[in-house]
Amino acid sequence: MGKIMKVEITAEGYSPTKTVVKARNFEMVIDEPPMLGGKDEGANPVEYLLGALSGCLNVMAHFIAKEMGIELGKLDIKIEGELDLAGLMGKEDVRPGFKWIKVKMKPESNASKEELKKLIEEVEKRCPVSDNLRNETPVEIELE
Amino acid sequence: MGKIMKVEITAEGYSPTKTVVKARNFEMVIDEPPMLGGKDEGANPVEYLLGALSGCLNVMAHFIAKEMGIELGKLDIKIEGELDLAGLMGKEDVRPGFKWIKVKMKPESNASKEELKKLIEEVEKRCPVSDNLRNETPVEIELE
Repeated sequence: MGKIMKVEITAEGYSPTKTVVKARNFEMVIDEPPMLGGKDEGANPVEYLLGALSGCLNVMAHFIAKEMGIELGKLDIKIEGELDLAGLMGKEDVRPGFKWIKVKMKPESNASKEELKKLIEEVEKRCPVSDNLRNETPVEIELE
Repeated sequence: MGKIMKVEITAEGYSPTKTVVKARNFEMVIDEPPMLGGKDEGANPVEYLLGALSGCLNVMAHFIAKEMGIELGKLDIKIEGELDLAGLMGKEDVRPGFKWIKVKMKPESNASKEELKKLIEEVEKRCPVSDNLRNETPVEIELE
């Protein structure tokens, strides 16, 4: 058994598109651009999702590099994904979420390409956010 | 065929735990608390993940309520998840991500409990972030 970590956030939907999230002492402002009915007061939910993935990959890359004895400096990450809005509009045979997510990582490091490839493989396996996206995760919604 | 939406972010890992994300004109600062080696300059990646889910659920709830002719005011959302740190530490048989995610939604509405239940069911089906968590999503990482 490892160390169990409970994570909790609360959020208030102030308008049909704007959500203010509290996580411990931090706040996130989420909104939609005007073309999706919002006022563009923050990044939108799917941008936050890709942002979460980038943060997790950065932490895990540095953590595992240290384990492997690889020196790793600044890490540039670019992530893109594509979704078909027909899914969220209700079309049955189209998935509403990202169909795929592609990540490019550009590490500042003296390590060999082989070592860096091994690092990335290990990061892919052990990154929590990547795991939750790649594999099925039960999400239960309850009405209060 | 629906409307294809491409979503892109860039991120810079400035330190082993701090990541600064750019999504269009928005910035997210992600860090870890001291117990996970960070300086606590922002919410951590898994908190951002739950935040993204709350934002998506809020937008979809209001969007579908409108479709159904249900009046929906402020929406309070609470999300929790649990993960076992042994997974990211490298223990093979423990998944690194959330084992489960639980959402509580408290809507301000005059609609009947039946209508609200139907609303939630539809939101579960059509929320992009929820879909990406519940179901498998290919994530490809490339080294530049």
